[in-house]
Amino acid sequence: MAPILLNCMGSDHMKQHVQVKNPYLDAMEEDILYHFSLSTKTHNLPEMFGDIKFVCVGGSANRMKAFAQFIHQELSLPGSCDELTDICEGTDRYCMYKVGPVLSISHGMGVPSISIMLHELIKLLHHAHCRDVVLFRLGTSGGVGLNPGTVVITEKAVDYSFRPQFEQVVLGKVITRSTELDEGLASELLQCSSELQDIPTVIGNTLCTHDFYEGQGRLDGALCSFSLEEKQEYLRKAYEAGVKNIEMESTVFAAMSRVCGVKAAVVCVTLLNRFEGDQITTPHDVLVEYQKRPQLLVSHFIKKRLGHIV
Amino acid sequence: MAPILLNCMGSDHMKQHVQVKNPYLDAMEEDILYHFSLSTKTHNLPEMFGDIKFVCVGGSANRMKAFAQFIHQELSLPGSCDELTDICEGTDRYCMYKVGPVLSISHGMGVPSISIMLHELIKLLHHAHCRDVVLFRLGTSGGVGLNPGTVVITEKAVDYSFRPQFEQVVLGKVITRSTELDEGLASELLQCSSELQDIPTVIGNTLCTHDFYEGQGRLDGALCSFSLEEKQEYLRKAYEAGVKNIEMESTVFAAMSRVCGVKAAVVCVTLLNRFEGDQITTPHDVLVEYQKRPQLLVSHFIKKRLGHIV
Repeated sequence: MAPILLNCMGSDHMKQHVQVKNPYLDAMEEDILYHFSLSTKTHNLPEMFGDIKFVCVGGSANRMKAFAQFIHQELSLPGSCDELTDICEGTDRYCMYKVGPVLSISHGMGVPSISIMLHELIKLLHHAHCRDVVLFRLGTSGGVGLNPGTVVITEKAVDYSFRPQFEQVVLGKVITRSTELDEGLASELLQCSSELQDIPTVIGNTLCTHDFYEGQGRLDGALCSFSLEEKQEYLRKAYEAGVKNIEMESTVFAAMSRVCGVKAAVVCVTLLNRFEGDQITTPHDVLVEYQKRPQLLVSHFIKKRLGHIV
Repeated sequence: MAPILLNCMGSDHMKQHVQVKNPYLDAMEEDILYHFSLSTKTHNLPEMFGDIKFVCVGGSANRMKAFAQFIHQELSLPGSCDELTDICEGTDRYCMYKVGPVLSISHGMGVPSISIMLHELIKLLHHAHCRDVVLFRLGTSGGVGLNPGTVVITEKAVDYSFRPQFEQVVLGKVITRSTELDEGLASELLQCSSELQDIPTVIGNTLCTHDFYEGQGRLDGALCSFSLEEKQEYLRKAYEAGVKNIEMESTVFAAMSRVCGVKAAVVCVTLLNRFEGDQITTPHDVLVEYQKRPQLLVSHFIKKRLGHIV
């Protein structure tokens, strides 16, 4: 049963359906969500997912399982957090855990990988008749002029030219979609961070690239055709365009959420300051602590929305 | 110890080093291959990987583990194929298994995900002083005018406009790389297929897209703004441009292999004929059999090269 959603009851949040933008979908006899190993014929999606209010996604399968276990404890739900089962166990493309009104899903690395997951997630939420869903990406990133461990809440996801747009190819033609995220949600998350200890947090733009090395100006890839000075110059331009961090999924995440009417936020911790290097040399236990910060922040947000914290 | 490489001894194959194209790499005190959880300081890469001659990569972690177990049996190597350990067990980004001279690695879905893996793989092969390495992508794909279950060996990987090129962003500028693959290797693989039963195989172009739904003209995504007729028209144009199948990694795979002087082939089975539908409705056991076909073909190639089959 869904817990009472105290802070979701305002008219602002009411009856906000997830909007698929596909006129053919409802006429299909069966919809196979292939990469989730779920289908409208073999699974009762409204029963399985109808009470979902918060969807948290992140690149790593292990991290999203750990988040599911963490939120299970935070929400004091019955049963053991060690017994959560992967709803997508029929495939190894993604993993998915349901914890009360929270769904935790992995999306792999890069725009194409998260895009497949988002198409099938949005269809899943549609088929399940979910309402008032808030979507979070909890990730890791490279920082631009920030101390490692800083959490960045994305204002706008920007492309390699620092434009707040996502280029989508549709039948061989390039179309452009806006990547602005929900301002109110970002402010609410920033407020949450101020209520927590040791989660340094800023709001800023997030640069989304399609690779980790050349596109992000790293000098340590298999291919590198530029100098340290050219790298620093690109990072400086990014910094001046309001970019606080660099990752690989935010543009399509923002664009698809926006088109489908889902309030969404990107919350990533920075693992290094890219002005100071390319390699991630921070000790493993420190990285593990950093990676928990977006989880702590979003968990606090969820608990407030559910009325667990007044 | 590396088995004797009978058919690799011709001058054509001799002393072909993997070429990193980065002047800074050899001056680095340590190179952390972050997404493999390996490093030049903590691992003896020449000892671990120096005898590698064949690298097989594919999207799914389970499938690449199954391939490692399969090739272990095919090469009649000592020990149990059930005891293979994941060399990348320190991370869940990729999995990696070494079986004699064969390395089997997963790369996730999409160009960005495989691109990170390829950067780190090429650096790994460089640090390990590997020579005469052949690289295969074993994948699944949508067919264009082919019966499901057909194996496609890629001649050229093409982009959404059917051009044999890959656009790479470097410090905010778009550069273009060729995606032509090794002709001799493709012919040798086609010859191998003719020596096997029940592996229908063709050579042709492979369309590489950055998403599974809108970019591939599917009518069953969360977003769809075109008609069935427009979809069929795009597929028809692809067919006329020599496209036999559609997947999501081949352009960057071809481009990076080429730049780094590694002979490479893309071998993908088609799971459906896209002229006839979008959803993958084929029964699970049939799909499992289809997915083995690229493995059978490449295994046959490797056994021939190693002199196990004369």
